[in-house]
Amino acid sequence: MNGAESLVKTLLRGGVDTCFANPGTSEMHFVSALDRVPGVRCVLGLFEGVVTGAADGYYRMTDKPAATLLHLGPGLANGLANLHNAKRAHSGIVNIVGDHAGYHLHLDSPLTSDIQSIAKPVSDWVRSSRSARSVGADAADAIAVANSPRGQIATLILPADTAWTDGGVVGVITAPAAPKPVPNEVVEEVVAALREGSAMLLVGYKGLRAEPIALAAAIGAKTGAEVMSIGRSSRIERGAGRVAIGRIPNPLENIRKRLSTMRTLILVDEEVPVTFFGFPGRNSEIVPEGCRVLTLANPGDDITGALRAVAEALGAKTSDVAPQTLSRPDMPTGELTIDKVAQAIAALMPEQAIVADESITSGRTLFPATAGAPPHDWLQLTGGAIGMGIPLATGAAVACPDRQVINLQADGSGMYTLQALWTQARERLNVVTVIWANRTYKILRGELVNVGAGEAGKIASAMLDIDDPAIDWVSLAKGMGVEGARATTMEEFSSAMRAGLSRNGPFLIEVVL
Amino acid sequence: MNGAESLVKTLLRGGVDTCFANPGTSEMHFVSALDRVPGVRCVLGLFEGVVTGAADGYYRMTDKPAATLLHLGPGLANGLANLHNAKRAHSGIVNIVGDHAGYHLHLDSPLTSDIQSIAKPVSDWVRSSRSARSVGADAADAIAVANSPRGQIATLILPADTAWTDGGVVGVITAPAAPKPVPNEVVEEVVAALREGSAMLLVGYKGLRAEPIALAAAIGAKTGAEVMSIGRSSRIERGAGRVAIGRIPNPLENIRKRLSTMRTLILVDEEVPVTFFGFPGRNSEIVPEGCRVLTLANPGDDITGALRAVAEALGAKTSDVAPQTLSRPDMPTGELTIDKVAQAIAALMPEQAIVADESITSGRTLFPATAGAPPHDWLQLTGGAIGMGIPLATGAAVACPDRQVINLQADGSGMYTLQALWTQARERLNVVTVIWANRTYKILRGELVNVGAGEAGKIASAMLDIDDPAIDWVSLAKGMGVEGARATTMEEFSSAMRAGLSRNGPFLIEVVL
Repeated sequence: MNGAESLVKTLLRGGVDTCFANPGTSEMHFVSALDRVPGVRCVLGLFEGVVTGAADGYYRMTDKPAATLLHLGPGLANGLANLHNAKRAHSGIVNIVGDHAGYHLHLDSPLTSDIQSIAKPVSDWVRSSRSARSVGADAADAIAVANSPRGQIATLILPADTAWTDGGVVGVITAPAAPKPVPNEVVEEVVAALREGSAMLLVGYKGLRAEPIALAAAIGAKTGAEVMSIGRSSRIERGAGRVAIGRIPNPLENIRKRLSTMRTLILVDEEVPVTFFGFPGRNSEIVPEGCRVLTLANPGDDITGALRAVAEALGAKTSDVAPQTLSRPDMPTGELTIDKVAQAIAALMPEQAIVADESITSGRTLFPATAGAPPHDWLQLTGGAIGMGIPLATGAAVACPDRQVINLQADGSGMYTLQALWTQARERLNVVTVIWANRTYKILRGELVNVGAGEAGKIASAMLDIDDPAIDWVSLAKGMGVEGARATTMEEFSSAMRAGLSRNGPFLIEVVL
Repeated sequence: MNGAESLVKTLLRGGVDTCFANPGTSEMHFVSALDRVPGVRCVLGLFEGVVTGAADGYYRMTDKPAATLLHLGPGLANGLANLHNAKRAHSGIVNIVGDHAGYHLHLDSPLTSDIQSIAKPVSDWVRSSRSARSVGADAADAIAVANSPRGQIATLILPADTAWTDGGVVGVITAPAAPKPVPNEVVEEVVAALREGSAMLLVGYKGLRAEPIALAAAIGAKTGAEVMSIGRSSRIERGAGRVAIGRIPNPLENIRKRLSTMRTLILVDEEVPVTFFGFPGRNSEIVPEGCRVLTLANPGDDITGALRAVAEALGAKTSDVAPQTLSRPDMPTGELTIDKVAQAIAALMPEQAIVADESITSGRTLFPATAGAPPHDWLQLTGGAIGMGIPLATGAAVACPDRQVINLQADGSGMYTLQALWTQARERLNVVTVIWANRTYKILRGELVNVGAGEAGKIASAMLDIDDPAIDWVSLAKGMGVEGARATTMEEFSSAMRAGLSRNGPFLIEVVL
């Protein structure tokens, strides 16, 4: 058994049975081992940003890490932006990055680079295997890191000679660590703060699954505390039959005024909110000095247990909170507008849909419009690095083959990783991609004003508008093997959306705004 | 004058008048300054790999750095692979990477990352500006680094507040350093070695311009020394009227046998050749122990001066070396083959064409086939990170608007940065892209055997073949605003190539192999 085979066996023993890949020469022994050790589903992406974004989507829907297979430093670099997003989503991923054989590295041949330096900013754990013998144990450690209750990014660098040399030993898998119980003192402090009144619960990450949301809402109903989430959640379980909570619309500054009337902000698997960017003469901090911040649960803590303890202490019951009723808007007709498309999507969304939302400016009405749609999961851009949506949808569809994925996608961001459409075609994934073709980096027009740089002149406009030439998304999809349609009226949109949802395999709709 | 304005003024004063850009919020003040300080040509790329690859192509054709404008760590990360290639091409580039305002950074908002760590592996110089006052001086230092005789990558990180704060001071530009003269002792040692016989001159980088090639060839003719280059050159001036030298076909191991008969290998702006990858049981070093290595000129040295000194000492005259005569193959017809397409390109290539070659396996016959074509420049993949060709062609076309660019492009590599086609359409660039649609990562099939992993099984094959679905390049080009045609016979190819070469603006030909 060579190192590569021990790696594949360790991955399988650790439950990592899906690998998003774009291999090169240095990873050929790993690829070859996949043939001899069956059980890993390999999904090819034609660019590494596809690979890493898909692994993020896979984790968000399964709470289970996938592996990625990346070729040397440049392959890792190409996947870095979506690893940044994945890290900010608290997604667990096991990256396998090939490297040159140890004895070859010092020769500085053309593809040599400092992989550790490239990996560190997006990894919670980085290790380069020293020998074929240690590869299995290293992989087991990587899996443990990725599998931690707060998902983490583990990057295992695999020198080619550790892959091809004999003497591999399958790693010993430790049971994934359980979420950490929250100490009684913390629960008591939060309970006391809630009893004082004027409190807000800010819920994030794995706190946004149906059960903890219902508990938080029950606590809110009992105590008068506001219960909110922020507008860039890794995954929210929502829709009819589930309890809805408030959401701070972007930008996060919107919450500052409300917090100024609060005595306590209670964080439930969420960070202290700050502005996305610094702006001239504006404060980047959002929580006013007079508002105390308490943390009920950190990422990796037993969030549901902590909320249950708080609810019990207060006598709050989830049965006292009314879940969202099913309520779909009527099907809009006529002239196409962003709001009407949002309504049409809400009207047509099937049960248990997964929404991968990178709609940026165009998407702001989509979230409220779909509140009463059948139960679904909503995944958002967590790290702000654009180019996440199409890959994320791809990974979510690989994770949940029986569910419909709907990717709400801004055009400028979609162009970053459009290669993921090819993977959707190859794997016959049930993804409907809705492209919001406003043909501009619209958010930047607002940001130009926000940063005090004034209106765009001729050159600035040329950096913000992407209308010359207009991108023809239906042709791009066709080039990748994905059928598509262009919608310029609501009738065209509804008909295309129905067609897309009813088929097996991917479909793309270009919404011309 | 704010920091951003001082930066633009410093760039212009330093001769950096072209900026390949994909800006975001943190770069809005720089973008805005471009409107107020005219003179910089801004070229938008819809992905950062386009931006950095284009800057590489621009430098190779002008020996002058362009600026790039990149958004934070993820934007830089997206451009990293082509910066790796640019660094390996010894191209000079001034990267401007926006960062959060200093007071915002510690809040670790979602788009925060360790930009320095990401930048270092691909940069010869990295600095983060400390204040608006220092931005101009920092930019002047960056320009000096990029402008060094061996082009270098300078990465200037620009915190948003240093851009928007008043107090900018235009930097003082120092005259670019001249290439370093090669000491007489070195020239004498090389002359002595050449007189001994059994020597090979290995010429690279800026040694591959017409004048140093002719000098090297004259030295070879006088002394019997072999004169060679390796098959991944940053730029070669070649074709009719120029002197041709030998070229070591890939893989570089091909040269080992020949070197075993050599007493001396003389490097002229080239590194000691080593294998691209390490392979089991095979030596990564190529130069046998018995062959001494002498360096006549390092990157950044006065290569032409050194060769002239050697030639004079030996009495070698360029007038004694016959330049390549114009000799074009006949136009092939009938069934389409790689060799015939190579002949057709050689038959049609116009004067002063620029060939951006990322043809990988399909391109091996192209170089010899075009030896007698009219004078042209040939640019290759220097760093092995695929996804260079379309951006490189884009940058070369921006640099040389009066010349025809021909991009010979493998399909798997082309998919990495296909967004560059959009920039070609937007800027009406004269680029004909020839896609070699073999629908496989063909080189990896060979590499699987090379690394001793045997033939591809079912899963390995699925990682190497990209034929399901087949990529429709004509549709992809159309989606980006570039007209194209598919060629399945030689008649179709010739007609498409003629059409592409005769138009203003870009064209794409998918060659179905």
